Amino acid sequence: MKLTGLITFTNLALLALVTSCATPQPAKDPLPAWNDGPAKQTIEKFVQTTTDPASKDFVPPTERIATFDQDGTLWVEHPVYSQLMYCLDHVPALVAAKPELKEVEPFKTVMSGDREAIAKLTMPELEKIAVMTLTGMSSEQFQAEVKSWLAKAKDPRWHRPYTELTYEPMQEVLKYFRANGFKTYIVTGGGQDFVRVYAEQIYGIPPEQVVGTALGTTYGYDKNGKPILTKEPKLLLNDDKAGKPEGIHLMIGRRPHAAFGNSPGDQQMLEYTKAGDGARLAMLVLHDDAKREYAYGPAQGLPDTKVGNFPQALYDKAQKDGWIVISMKNDWKKILAFEDK
Amino acid sequence: MKLTGLITFTNLALLALVTSCATPQPAKDPLPAWNDGPAKQTIEKFVQTTTDPASKDFVPPTERIATFDQDGTLWVEHPVYSQLMYCLDHVPALVAAKPELKEVEPFKTVMSGDREAIAKLTMPELEKIAVMTLTGMSSEQFQAEVKSWLAKAKDPRWHRPYTELTYEPMQEVLKYFRANGFKTYIVTGGGQDFVRVYAEQIYGIPPEQVVGTALGTTYGYDKNGKPILTKEPKLLLNDDKAGKPEGIHLMIGRRPHAAFGNSPGDQQMLEYTKAGDGARLAMLVLHDDAKREYAYGPAQGLPDTKVGNFPQALYDKAQKDGWIVISMKNDWKKILAFEDK
Repeated sequence: MKLTGLITFTNLALLALVTSCATPQPAKDPLPAWNDGPAKQTIEKFVQTTTDPASKDFVPPTERIATFDQDGTLWVEHPVYSQLMYCLDHVPALVAAKPELKEVEPFKTVMSGDREAIAKLTMPELEKIAVMTLTGMSSEQFQAEVKSWLAKAKDPRWHRPYTELTYEPMQEVLKYFRANGFKTYIVTGGGQDFVRVYAEQIYGIPPEQVVGTALGTTYGYDKNGKPILTKEPKLLLNDDKAGKPEGIHLMIGRRPHAAFGNSPGDQQMLEYTKAGDGARLAMLVLHDDAKREYAYGPAQGLPDTKVGNFPQALYDKAQKDGWIVISMKNDWKKILAFEDK
Repeated sequence: MKLTGLITFTNLALLALVTSCATPQPAKDPLPAWNDGPAKQTIEKFVQTTTDPASKDFVPPTERIATFDQDGTLWVEHPVYSQLMYCLDHVPALVAAKPELKEVEPFKTVMSGDREAIAKLTMPELEKIAVMTLTGMSSEQFQAEVKSWLAKAKDPRWHRPYTELTYEPMQEVLKYFRANGFKTYIVTGGGQDFVRVYAEQIYGIPPEQVVGTALGTTYGYDKNGKPILTKEPKLLLNDDKAGKPEGIHLMIGRRPHAAFGNSPGDQQMLEYTKAGDGARLAMLVLHDDAKREYAYGPAQGLPDTKVGNFPQALYDKAQKDGWIVISMKNDWKKILAFEDK
């Protein structure tokens, strides 16, 4: 090999090195399950603006808080909230432990197995069932029971574990926010202790970043003198509607920069988020895809529902206040991770 | 330059590079304000054990939670809690806003300026003052008032801002834990909203990692229709004694692996921490250095106190249950950052 050959080789190698450093890789789309459109663009623009130190809307990393409703925003809530299924499934065990409830309503109806009658239970009756099946045990016993239920329960439409019913596009948003220094929180009307059992596994959100409707516990000791926390039928936080900003103040202590929801229970959280200075993002998921998921409103002429409704007034408020409505049908290329399988 | 010269030069350069990589720097002492002794060694051993993947007591990073009482554990609590000074200092403004309180006890006594009479106020009277001066305004107004008070208030002994009265050895522990993947939380009997105003600045602990005694807020709108949270005289969490593990469950949702305190208000938090599986650390700060800080017990024959007492029964329980008592006098080389100045 001649010396000039060596030099040429070295130069080529150097050139390759320099080229590989200098040419930016085409940026990987952080939101591949989203169709290109105003919703996707708004999310990307918000993240770029708040993380660019040169932007007037730059948010220091420690202040990057994003909050997400769960039922209907991160995962499927129809035909009925999975936590309610958990409670109904636990009535037999409750009645076995407290036989005096066997002839008492609403437990009697649940034990009858009469689906039509169960579907007609009123909200106060369902709350009674929830309180009785969610309290009276240690927090660790409760966690174990939820875990074991989740491992076997299946939803009635896809016959899959509830933990598989998360929305792929929202999973991408969670990861995209976290990759950009945001702390992602669930802020749910559902039970805080219930959601905390699985949120880390399915969303990468640890227990301390789950804010939900919270019942109190009482500290005490078991028969061996070991400390235990017993779940009590005492409401500490009703994390719905006005309770969402109140819960955010209690549990997080600062205003989010971004908030996602899908129903009037999220309205105050979105208002509170948007009322802050600088760039703030407020988004609502509209369920308008009966084929791939469900369609319910009654906004935009969609069928009315008792579970996670989206009234026209909320839709109009979103338009007026600069909140973005996400159309599942038009904005989401893919809804559920398993839908192509 | 001869070719051999070039080779030698290259080899030397390579050798230097390899050497600088291969020779470990002597590990920097993470706790220089601690004297070498059982307390320091226990902390170091705990951190090493729980972060070594080969150890049977390894704790995955997401589960590394360490909780710290504040008053008397992270900073000075004598002669009286700084939050109480804040409340007393705000009585004149309260009386100006509500003149009907001028002739009502305990406000009348505070307004008299009679220090002896003020020192004799009972706990229920002090609580009345606290509730009246900590509620009735928006959460943002409150934050602004605490911030402005902290900027001018000085403690009576060193005549320094309260925010300078943190313990250097505990600041080191906070940093040491965080450098090893632990999330550090304050779990205080003090007001959650009060401590959140300064915890990030003085301890590097963000608002969402401050658990404290919490009053409720009510979501509403100001006269311009802007959403506000108003602080209410409604106790949500009394974060003291049994309230500490209850508050940890509510706000964090999992059991700490390490907990630090200094009084009976921390006993249940330490019990709860130690009752978990694997390596758990429970430590209590004993104030036995009247010269550099304060000395109070009544454990070990130290003078009794009404503020952050440490009874002999707690000392004995610590010995029995493997909790480590930190002697400020013997274990801490330096107590306050400014003490040599």
